[in-house]
Amino acid sequence: MKAIEFDRYGPPHEVCHCIEVAEPGAPGPDEVIVAVEACSINPADLLLIEGRYPGPKQLPARLGIEGVGRVTATGSGVGHLDTGQRVLLLGRTNWTETICTAANNVIAIDQNIDPLQAAMMKVNPPTAMLMLSNYIDLAPGDWVIQNASNSAVGYHVIRLARARGIHTVSVVRRQSAVATVAALGADLVLVDDENLAEKVRSGIGDANLPLALDAIGGAACLHLAQSLSIGGTVVNYGFLSGEPCMITPTETIVRDITLRGFWLANHLGKATRQGIEAIFTEVTSLIRDGTIAAPVEATYGLDEVKTALAHAGRGERSGKILFTPGGPIA
Amino acid sequence: MKAIEFDRYGPPHEVCHCIEVAEPGAPGPDEVIVAVEACSINPADLLLIEGRYPGPKQLPARLGIEGVGRVTATGSGVGHLDTGQRVLLLGRTNWTETICTAANNVIAIDQNIDPLQAAMMKVNPPTAMLMLSNYIDLAPGDWVIQNASNSAVGYHVIRLARARGIHTVSVVRRQSAVATVAALGADLVLVDDENLAEKVRSGIGDANLPLALDAIGGAACLHLAQSLSIGGTVVNYGFLSGEPCMITPTETIVRDITLRGFWLANHLGKATRQGIEAIFTEVTSLIRDGTIAAPVEATYGLDEVKTALAHAGRGERSGKILFTPGGPIA
Repeated sequence: MKAIEFDRYGPPHEVCHCIEVAEPGAPGPDEVIVAVEACSINPADLLLIEGRYPGPKQLPARLGIEGVGRVTATGSGVGHLDTGQRVLLLGRTNWTETICTAANNVIAIDQNIDPLQAAMMKVNPPTAMLMLSNYIDLAPGDWVIQNASNSAVGYHVIRLARARGIHTVSVVRRQSAVATVAALGADLVLVDDENLAEKVRSGIGDANLPLALDAIGGAACLHLAQSLSIGGTVVNYGFLSGEPCMITPTETIVRDITLRGFWLANHLGKATRQGIEAIFTEVTSLIRDGTIAAPVEATYGLDEVKTALAHAGRGERSGKILFTPGGPIA
Repeated sequence: MKAIEFDRYGPPHEVCHCIEVAEPGAPGPDEVIVAVEACSINPADLLLIEGRYPGPKQLPARLGIEGVGRVTATGSGVGHLDTGQRVLLLGRTNWTETICTAANNVIAIDQNIDPLQAAMMKVNPPTAMLMLSNYIDLAPGDWVIQNASNSAVGYHVIRLARARGIHTVSVVRRQSAVATVAALGADLVLVDDENLAEKVRSGIGDANLPLALDAIGGAACLHLAQSLSIGGTVVNYGFLSGEPCMITPTETIVRDITLRGFWLANHLGKATRQGIEAIFTEVTSLIRDGTIAAPVEATYGLDEVKTALAHAGRGERSGKILFTPGGPIA
């Protein structure tokens, strides 16, 4: 069978290879075998391969933070999963045709979900959902501001907020992204600069804006902080600028602004099994009812790994790139 | 009688003058007259006079954020204060011999307290006390880290923490300050640099360090954040560097560090009268039992304003400068 591995840290399309490996044997008592239907290429995968994100110490190593598939065999001690069950793969080596993994490392999900959407549900939808729920008790009519809005998390935030009656100010870095983000339902779309707070207040008046979601750091983080209502919270979840988050003492001391951080891995690491299942049950129903949907630009076979990774690395895309190890999905 | 006013924003010893004004007349029904015994010169007074801190729009204006005195007359509606009662003055125009103010703008304090210490109790002691209490539930054996430790708040933090069995890492900017701060009872005194976190961990091992108090901002704030235990909180309360607080996404996202701000004015503004009285009752008892004591370098009459302000503006001092409008206090 085919799987993808990388043998050194570097440019993804150079250091990743599709290799032939043996199929997994019979599962151990607490294991399952899963045939992978789809697995996405995430920015975090690319950062890991480039050595800019915590990755395996020993190389070569397997890859793939997200994936979805169907159970093809279960160990003798696995009572709660049947052959044929569609499952979300929680491990980090999902770019493969078939995987043998601990049964508690998969989550049974709705049989009727689109497998491409399911292959993009582990990271971005819960990130958006939990950042909107865990810091501020938002009421309908409240506003949320985010930057890097032209991203999968950005899209989900807009759609999830809208479904709850919460308005969004979506900040982008280029004028060319404004129309795309506005079309998703953002209430106000602004291009970032040092006058952001002023532009926000021209747009929303003195409406309550208690939460900001920052994927960039540096001055972009400060601009969000300055836009918040007094007592508001900035949640930093990315570092696209490569610079430290900046918050002036005027914001912290006088305007009582708080800066926090969100990392899904930390959140899931502290959650119970029941808590994790509840999160993905909610995500599944949000996908099923159309509240969240991530656009797909292309799918590739595992043997097209170099083309796929080069494609994923290009900046201006209309959607995600995924592998479909079991063959194309309509 | 004498009072101090300033007629333009600028260097304090140039723009402040001691003037002769009429004594206040009889108090209104809800007012009291207070003879000021002592009033301190704070960094915030100097910043205000220099125009670097929010100040009065209309000049000339009176000055003096802190002061203590004795009631000399009470209005007909003031039942809870008698002539002779020593009071803390909560207003911001205390550099004067006598002041007429609303009765709810003063707090009755212990008759036997040292008036010089009382004239330094409104700002720094509650700042240190509330920052140690309001953010993290510290247990004996926990550690707290602070920078700009060679300051009045820094001293109070060391003494208050010690009284509660909490250890302090006190960071200073110059090697010359280490001995002074260590003599106050700091458990570990370090000079700030980019290896601060490493030096902290060499000193305290994996002890719990959940709270950092930052008076500087910029990279100094980041160094504190890096020194904290996972999940810790930095409370920013000053901006001595003039630079934004910096916190890397590694700290916010991976290590779950929170940045908040503390401003006494915000805190007192939200507190009830009862809450404010409780704060100053506690501060008074901490002064009475010797837990906190701010060193005094010199006292001056109001007519020595230029000498006093020039003295207060010098960097290397061993203690505070105060005015004693009613004459020297032994």
